[in-house]
Formats: sequence, structure tokens, C-alpha cells
Amino acid sequence: MPRIKVLQFGLGPIGVRAARLAAAKQGMKLVAAVDVDPAKIGRDVGELDGGAPIGVKVSGDAAAALRKTRPDVALHTTSSSFKAVAPQLELLARAGCSVVSSTEEMLFPALKNRALTARLDKLARSCKVVLLGTGVNPGFVMDTMALVATAVCYEVRRVSVDRRVDAGTRRLPLQKKVGAGISVAEFNERKARRAIGHVGLPESLALLAHGLGWKVDAIEEELQPVVAQRDLQTQYLEIKAGQVAGIHNSGRVISGGRERISLDLQMYVGCPEPYDRVVLDSDPPIDVKFAGGVAGDWATAAMLVNLAARAVEVAATNPGLRLMTEMTLPRLVG
Amino acid sequence: MPRIKVLQFGLGPIGVRAARLAAAKQGMKLVAAVDVDPAKIGRDVGELDGGAPIGVKVSGDAAAALRKTRPDVALHTTSSSFKAVAPQLELLARAGCSVVSSTEEMLFPALKNRALTARLDKLARSCKVVLLGTGVNPGFVMDTMALVATAVCYEVRRVSVDRRVDAGTRRLPLQKKVGAGISVAEFNERKARRAIGHVGLPESLALLAHGLGWKVDAIEEELQPVVAQRDLQTQYLEIKAGQVAGIHNSGRVISGGRERISLDLQMYVGCPEPYDRVVLDSDPPIDVKFAGGVAGDWATAAMLVNLAARAVEVAATNPGLRLMTEMTLPRLVG
Repeated sequence: MPRIKVLQFGLGPIGVRAARLAAAKQGMKLVAAVDVDPAKIGRDVGELDGGAPIGVKVSGDAAAALRKTRPDVALHTTSSSFKAVAPQLELLARAGCSVVSSTEEMLFPALKNRALTARLDKLARSCKVVLLGTGVNPGFVMDTMALVATAVCYEVRRVSVDRRVDAGTRRLPLQKKVGAGISVAEFNERKARRAIGHVGLPESLALLAHGLGWKVDAIEEELQPVVAQRDLQTQYLEIKAGQVAGIHNSGRVISGGRERISLDLQMYVGCPEPYDRVVLDSDPPIDVKFAGGVAGDWATAAMLVNLAARAVEVAATNPGLRLMTEMTLPRLVG
Repeated sequence: MPRIKVLQFGLGPIGVRAARLAAAKQGMKLVAAVDVDPAKIGRDVGELDGGAPIGVKVSGDAAAALRKTRPDVALHTTSSSFKAVAPQLELLARAGCSVVSSTEEMLFPALKNRALTARLDKLARSCKVVLLGTGVNPGFVMDTMALVATAVCYEVRRVSVDRRVDAGTRRLPLQKKVGAGISVAEFNERKARRAIGHVGLPESLALLAHGLGWKVDAIEEELQPVVAQRDLQTQYLEIKAGQVAGIHNSGRVISGGRERISLDLQMYVGCPEPYDRVVLDSDPPIDVKFAGGVAGDWATAAMLVNLAARAVEVAATNPGLRLMTEMTLPRLVG
């Protein structure tokens, strides 16, 4: 088997991790890395997280890097918005390069951008590449994993997924992302301008309904702060009782007039028992739980790299803008 | 979407269940059912388990049924042996009918029959059909599910899967299959002539190693009786202390000189806590558990029906004798 040639597109913390991981895989070869940040261009990817160099320098010119290295697939980690990344996807597709992206909206891009999805699907087919959105959440614990759990079922009446994350044990950016240490008033102000909360819950809900063939009457979503009941301390932050400890993001699919899918995500400092749990009201009944939960940050880098092998495989026979439901079995690649 | 036309091949208890389920699915149409048993031929499939008729009569002539009904896919439930079912697979493939089979050896047919696997793969490609082996175990809890759990991992050093089944709550045939109520001497005699135990553990091990890209030095398997420590009583059987309560079947993959995969299956009357559990020595670490376990019998019928939709999908772009790793995402079909 020839090694898969990988380009890293976007070199934030997850992108650097993904690039390192791709470079270490036997079946892959990291051939290029691109970012727009002048402070990163020209440096070895490995320097960006203070680790060992990996022999690939950051380029600021994606088109030139594509022409020069002809990658099979890009690991794409730049933005949460499908619309915002569409020109990047187009550039990659036209160069014959499949894309596995952490862009949350790409988990189910048609939900918010039907016309753009159709246009990029057509482009991907004609360029014989796969465009795929994935990750840990969205991408695995609250959607793909729940779908796989339904495979042994006769009938499923209802799907519930709970995710509990102790933000206190995670990186500072995650603690900030969930609003740890801010006031409830500040939380509500950020919420009003959509500057806080998890991105991707509606997309997870849409993927679940699509995968199960359930008609969607409505997708609903709510966001509330989790308020600290006592003073809390993390490695980075102090949180007083009454301040925000994190987020509670929930959502549901209404189908046939009733709630058939519900997702409940709580990420906050001091969460006593982190886990991911899928409960199906089904025959046979299913109750499956990841003890300790699946940590998101670096696992997202792993999902991108692991799914890159699947995207390249699917591109050979069934190119297009594809969903996780259309990938061959997700798993570790060697 | 046109409905998938389904043929049921083999009408034991699981086959009848699978046929009923296919007949009830919106996206499927049960068009034919075949069995060799003269006592079943000519009767409505639904009569065979004493339930309501479903409007499809059992035929004894598979070739005629195929010609007349032109099914897209067969749910195949006849034997555990790949070699034994090969002529049936060939007949189905030549009629342009994909096959999803409960034949345990078909989960990884090359393990015991490399040449036959290559021959049937070639045939399936030329006939543009998929031939697939699946089920709950083998097929899901000890292999496919464990592979999916690795998707979020950077690195996996070791895979362990434990399955615990309380045979006391299951059908009489399963209690008999695990030797409940026989003597240890009788167990050993049956073991010597391979007439007791679970079929498929080596195939699950081979699928796991293949899916992870791990080189197999050796696959090892062991079978021991679980001996009743006290008198036990099921709905059907009485088991005295010292008699066999069930089986303990374990196996492992040696790779690179060390044990990298281990499967441990215990099915016995009186098992106190049934569950299925996958533990990965990995980054991030994974510990995922199905509370109560996934009951095998009827869930196997569900797996066959659910995977039939995937097999038909894959046949359109990538026909051949295929493995679970090559299917699009396993999940409930509507």
C-alpha cells in the first residue's frame, strides 16, 4: 500500500497535534502544512507546540503547497463555520485533495447551508474527492457512536445521549470557552451574541435523524450556565460561588409530533463524574457508557487522522461531500 | 427510494425473526423465503414461529425463487461453516443477489479458507454483489464495536473485550448450546469433537487485527466449562452443583511477540452481571460498557436486516466479498 499523502490545513493546537500524528503514522506521510499566520509561516510544524521538529515547514501559500506536494487528503482545522471555510474546501477539492475537517457545521452542512452543500457536493464528485466533517463532539460521542449502538436493534423509539465533561481538568482555552469564572450576566450577554457555548449540537441531532431515517419536524436547542455552588479552583482559574462554572447545552429532535432524540451536554469545572452515555429506548434495550468520557481536544486530532484513511478509501468509489454515515467503519489507522 | 427486495434464506428461529423484521421495515420488501425442510415448504413464514402470517410462502427451490422475485439481498441463516454455505452464496451471487449472512466463519472467511475467499470475492465482484458475514457475536460486541471505539484514539497498545451472558435468561437452545446441566466429563467429550462452544472467536480476533492493521503472529483460543458452585434452576433446566453451568471461551492475538488483543466470553446459567465491555490501553484511554449486555438471538436478526441496507449500498460502488470494516456506518434502518 502506498502511504497516504497528508496536508495539514490550519495550525492551531489541534492542527499541530493532527499534523504530528499524521507524520508518525506508518501508512501516512505529512507532505505539507499551511496557515495564514505570518508568525507561523516558515517554521517547522513541530516548533509550534514547543516539541521536536518534524521536518515539514509551514507555508502561507496553500495553492503552491498543493501544486508542489499533491496530497491525497487535507486535515482541515480552521473555523467552525461551513460558509467561512467553503473557499478553502473548493481550493483543496480542485487540487484533487480530499478533506477531513473539524469544522463543526460540516458534520451536517445541509442543516444551515443547503445550496452551498449541494454545490460543494457536485464539485467534490467532479474532482473525485471526499469532503467530510468529523471530530469527537460533534463527530463521535453524541452522534456516530449512538448510531452504531442502534445497529443491533429491531426498533428504536428514542435516543438519548448525555455527555459530562469536567472542564477543570482540561486546557485553559476550554475552560474559557465554557465561561468558567465569568458572571451569569456576562454569560447571558455572550450567549445573546452567540459568543459562548458548544458548536455542533444541532448538526449532531440532524445527523442522528438522517442516519436513522427519521423525519425532522423541528430541532430545538437550549443553552444555560452551570453556576458554581461553592468556590472552585483549577490549575488556571479561580471561580467564586455564584459565578459560572461552565455550560449546559441541550437539544432535541421532534419527529412525528414527539421528542425522539435528546442530547444533553454539560461541560463545567467540578463535574464530579465525567462520562459519555447513550441510552436507547429500543428492542433490545441499550445502555452504553464510556467511563470517564472521551476527552475532546487531542481525540479530535485522532479522529481527523483516523477518518482521513476512510475518506481516501471512500473517495476511490463514492466521491462527494459525504457524512459520517457514508464512511467505511471508523477506527484507528496504523 | 425504491424499497430493497429481500429474500430470506434459511428459516430457523433467527431466520424467521429476520424475515418478519424485513417484512415490517418501510424501506424493505420481503419477496421470498427459502428452506430445505419439507415440513416448512409451502407454509407462510409467519406460521413457523406461531405468529401472524406475513404473506410470503416458503419455497424449497432457491433458484426458482431468485428467478421469479429478483431480490437485491438475501438474509442468510443456514450454517456456521463458510465452506458448507459456499454453494448457496454462489447461487445467490450469480442471481445478482447480495448476501448478509450469520455464518460465523464469514466474519473473516480468509482465516480458515483463503482460496475459497478469493474465489468468492472474484465472483461477487463480477456479479456486482456484496457478500458479508455479520451478527451480534461474532459481528458486533466483540469486534465491530471495539474497532469503532478505537476511532478516537491516537494510539492503541492493547484491546480487551469481555462479554458476560446469563444463559439462564435465554432460550433453551442457547442453554443447551453452552452445555448447561451436563457433566464436566461430557463437556470435555463434546469439546474434543468440537460439538460445544461458541463459533467465531478466532474470526473476531482476526477482524480486529485486520481492522487495526496489526500483523498476526498467532491466534490462540481456549475453551473451559464454567462449573456450577451451587444448584441452579432455569425455566427449562435443573443444574446440580458440580455440573456444567456454561462456557468460558477466551482467545488472543499475539502480534510483535506480545498479546495485543484478548477476548473473554463467559456464557453460563447464573452469571450475576451480564455486560459487554471494551477496554483499550490507549491514548486517550477507553473503557466502554453495555450495561446488561446485548442479547444475541433476536439482535442477530436485527443486525442482518440493518446491515442488509449497508450491503446493498456498498454493492453499488464497491462489490465483492466484504468485511464489516468495509461497510458504511452500521445502524438501524427504517
